[in-house]
Amino acid sequence: MKPRLTLDALNTALPGEFAAALANAFEHSPWIAGTAASARPFASLAELRDAMIAVIDQASPERRLGLIRAHPDLANRTQRAAGLTAESTAEQDWAGLDRLSDAEFALFEQSNRAYRRKFGFPSILCVRRHTRDSILDIFARRLKNQPTQEERETIDEIGRIATLRLAELIDSTTPLPINGRLSTHVLDTHAGQPAAGVALELIELSRHGASRLIAKTATNADGRTDGALIEGRPVPIGAYELWFHMGDYFARRGVAMNEPPFLEIVPVRFGVSEPEVHLHIPLLVTPWSYTTYRGS
Amino acid sequence: MKPRLTLDALNTALPGEFAAALANAFEHSPWIAGTAASARPFASLAELRDAMIAVIDQASPERRLGLIRAHPDLANRTQRAAGLTAESTAEQDWAGLDRLSDAEFALFEQSNRAYRRKFGFPSILCVRRHTRDSILDIFARRLKNQPTQEERETIDEIGRIATLRLAELIDSTTPLPINGRLSTHVLDTHAGQPAAGVALELIELSRHGASRLIAKTATNADGRTDGALIEGRPVPIGAYELWFHMGDYFARRGVAMNEPPFLEIVPVRFGVSEPEVHLHIPLLVTPWSYTTYRGS
Amino acid sequence: MKPRLTLDALNTALPGEFAAALANAFEHSPWIAGTAASARPFASLAELRDAMIAVIDQASPERRLGLIRAHPDLANRTQRAAGLTAESTAEQDWAGLDRLSDAEFALFEQSNRAYRRKFGFPSILCVRRHTRDSILDIFARRLKNQPTQEERETIDEIGRIATLRLAELIDSTTPLPINGRLSTHVLDTHAGQPAAGVALELIELSRHGASRLIAKTATNADGRTDGALIEGRPVPIGAYELWFHMGDYFARRGVAMNEPPFLEIVPVRFGVSEPEVHLHIPLLVTPWSYTTYRGS
Amino acid sequence: MKPRLTLDALNTALPGEFAAALANAFEHSPWIAGTAASARPFASLAELRDAMIAVIDQASPERRLGLIRAHPDLANRTQRAAGLTAESTAEQDWAGLDRLSDAEFALFEQSNRAYRRKFGFPSILCVRRHTRDSILDIFARRLKNQPTQEERETIDEIGRIATLRLAELIDSTTPLPINGRLSTHVLDTHAGQPAAGVALELIELSRHGASRLIAKTATNADGRTDGALIEGRPVPIGAYELWFHMGDYFARRGVAMNEPPFLEIVPVRFGVSEPEVHLHIPLLVTPWSYTTYRGS
Repeated sequence: MKPRLTLDALNTALPGEFAAALANAFEHSPWIAGTAASARPFASLAELRDAMIAVIDQASPERRLGLIRAHPDLANRTQRAAGLTAESTAEQDWAGLDRLSDAEFALFEQSNRAYRRKFGFPSILCVRRHTRDSILDIFARRLKNQPTQEERETIDEIGRIATLRLAELIDSTTPLPINGRLSTHVLDTHAGQPAAGVALELIELSRHGASRLIAKTATNADGRTDGALIEGRPVPIGAYELWFHMGDYFARRGVAMNEPPFLEIVPVRFGVSEPEVHLHIPLLVTPWSYTTYRGS
Repeated sequence: MKPRLTLDALNTALPGEFAAALANAFEHSPWIAGTAASARPFASLAELRDAMIAVIDQASPERRLGLIRAHPDLANRTQRAAGLTAESTAEQDWAGLDRLSDAEFALFEQSNRAYRRKFGFPSILCVRRHTRDSILDIFARRLKNQPTQEERETIDEIGRIATLRLAELIDSTTPLPINGRLSTHVLDTHAGQPAAGVALELIELSRHGASRLIAKTATNADGRTDGALIEGRPVPIGAYELWFHMGDYFARRGVAMNEPPFLEIVPVRFGVSEPEVHLHIPLLVTPWSYTTYRGS
Repeated sequence: MKPRLTLDALNTALPGEFAAALANAFEHSPWIAGTAASARPFASLAELRDAMIAVIDQASPERRLGLIRAHPDLANRTQRAAGLTAESTAEQDWAGLDRLSDAEFALFEQSNRAYRRKFGFPSILCVRRHTRDSILDIFARRLKNQPTQEERETIDEIGRIATLRLAELIDSTTPLPINGRLSTHVLDTHAGQPAAGVALELIELSRHGASRLIAKTATNADGRTDGALIEGRPVPIGAYELWFHMGDYFARRGVAMNEPPFLEIVPVRFGVSEPEVHLHIPLLVTPWSYTTYRGS
Repeated sequence: MKPRLTLDALNTALPGEFAAALANAFEHSPWIAGTAASARPFASLAELRDAMIAVIDQASPERRLGLIRAHPDLANRTQRAAGLTAESTAEQDWAGLDRLSDAEFALFEQSNRAYRRKFGFPSILCVRRHTRDSILDIFARRLKNQPTQEERETIDEIGRIATLRLAELIDSTTPLPINGRLSTHVLDTHAGQPAAGVALELIELSRHGASRLIAKTATNADGRTDGALIEGRPVPIGAYELWFHMGDYFARRGVAMNEPPFLEIVPVRFGVSEPEVHLHIPLLVTPWSYTTYRGS
């Protein structure tokens, strides 16, 4: 990993160095960093980001369209084979767009084509904040937009993409709020203590393709997991199931149960809508009952 | 449907009439009813059933083995094509043994073969009390039995099959406890009232084949279903999911929710171990939390 | 108890008989029944009641005021000693107005005096729908009314009193909805079964006087009580605590607990606002947790 | 507050200095510190404490009895007037023994007298770990002990008292586990977020005297309290109610409620049995339901 930049260094660099360092914050569009250089110094990462977005807003319509057209299609295998920027490739991989089933791939192709036909530019989304399902849902909605409205949403998404890229490039004492967190806690209300050693599986649901196992872990002595289930990144918008293997846990504790047990795997299905937020999903559980909720 | 017999009529019938009427209570074995006729009168259906089981217990080992061998294999397509008793066909259909996937069919074949190789007689189970998964689980366990132990379990299962057949044939003021019930109740603890119009789906899970939709209904004004989800029959031993479509319900109520909602479909996964019992599974639910439990 | 009247008999009685039978439906005001007689026949008890209220609404202001003034003050010891109608006495006793502490009595005196000073007539309320606290609360609010508004509320309360009196006097196939119900259900989610033999106490809370034990019972084998905690009457508006003696119950079941136990008596405090409704308050409980809610 | 000692300083002090510094760890018994000085150095506070207890265990029966007799009676007004050690006075005050009602005082007198009559020495207990009720309960139990057994329990309690005194006197990198914590967390599962601004009252219950308000606070933006309800000391063994003022909270949020509301004050009654432990009691609550449990 290359050494990260600091905001101080960027503020005092030569304009050309500044522009070069941030050239890829916006896909194939170094002119944005080039113009933003003159607005320095920036007191925070958010100020820098906002200055770069302002450059786009104040650019000519042609330049704005050029920026949009510089982006690849989502999940486009031909473009991928021909080579994307390293940033685009990594982002699309995070969302699982490199592992689409044929059925999903067909849906993305169809969505992309319909979109490009209507708007004349590629469909752009900050994929690291999304799952396969939410991407398809969002483009189904955005396809109904008026062109000017859609250009606005596209620039907003480009801003979200740039935010994540800047946060990775630059060390700052004023970090951007880009990461969410997904955590859990299992309370055994039969014994009145945290449930330790409960096997957990986090599954990303998909309406069109296969569900994906995102995390597999177990609770520690405090009934929590040593790290969060998802952390250090946005929690992708979408639908999930969190599986708590309670049957095995209670069997190990020696609690009398039926055969098969009333509760074996407890699946909690939930939707994520705010990727930058801490979502805590506890389970209060006995062999015969459970409660779950959006905690804090 | 043919007119049902009464216990009174059976108690006073000629021995031959009695034997003929109950000939099929035990598969291809009218001798059991023939012998039991002399133990009349029976004060209850349970007494009649116990008398017939006693005939088996007191019969010669050869006759007992003959009774066992008179049964068809489970899920045997060849035997089915060749024709089973009407009772056997109906019973196997209830458990879905007529709609096995190829993978499931292969597992049943393998299980049946291993069983017959070890014990020399067909694998017998009261299938109306079971799901595909529980049948496979049970024979995996029973395959480890000693032969005498396994003959005992087999006769017990034949008794369970006969109990269901007798309960269908004979009207009685002392009915046998053969039916269970599966019910639910949805309380909207956001509004403090029963949740009406919640769409429900009951799904029988399968580890080896496809899950099956067992019931599809909606809650009434009291938050309950007009009939139970399963009633008037044993609730088959196995694993299920009950899906509560809460997202649609709260959207109709006009409650503000995220997009996607935190709770959309709430799946409650549970095991059934006692087919003759009332199992009540309520849901107390808000857009942000729920509680479920084995109720009464 | 004297034989109850029937609506049919009242519909066909001589006008004088009708008037005499219902003379006491409105305190010392037989003229209401006398006038309502000519509106017969009544298809339901509600129609009869509404016709009597209509008589009041159409009467002269003087007669209306006369009706109001014919009522006793609430909790007035002098009037009580001098003799109230049997109906008024019974109604006031139900609400516990015959057993006020000195402090409470002083508050009622003060409330009555202020009310009479402002409006010139006695404070009237259907006391069977109330507790001591809710009576004081309501008159504190009503004291701020305009006189015409207060006359309206007073006539409404007289209508509620008459409704209860008519429902007691007259047998009908179309009964008036005058009774509520308060019930509970204790589910032991540690054992996955109803909690039998749990001692229960229902306490009416009072801010000014002593709390009163209203009911003392225990759960049956189904975790419910044999009769409802309150039934066959309106459930008085007010604040209550329902005490569940869970420590004793779990000790009897032999569950290991701390000393003192985490849960001994579980008090559930709740308000009643709708006396004619069924209020169900279940408890789902382990030695370490519980859930309660407004059920149905 | 005088500067606290350190373990290092004590390990290297002259024997006389060491004995003087710890003279009051055991009531009027400097000889214990004097003898323990020769066992230095101590690697931890626990080692020091155990060494001092060992001195008592190895002392002659007369000295042991002398130590016991050097203690004051609990809640003895005459002794208090005559003057106790500052340590004893503070400890008894913490438990509220200086504010007993006359009825409670009479019970303590009676308990002390019966105890002294049977055992010939004062009743001793580490009162900072107790409430008025638990003290009376424990002496009712200990009164049935055999004398030798009771001497053992008394020495154990003297050890608990000394532990608290030593922990206050001495700074250590290896602190003794003397403090518990009582905390709460209010989750509004109607809104799916922490409940901020909920007024809370913690009440110590008493069977014989008046209940005492222990803490009065409100939840912060995270639904927790800024400090724990009880912390920095043992949580006294006893029975408590924690009151959550939910009616006011939901009214402020503008949620439609009945009059009176179904839930106004939610009292959670619980027992504390382990003073050195963290006891967490959350509330998940809507205007129509709540769940509480022993959390972690």
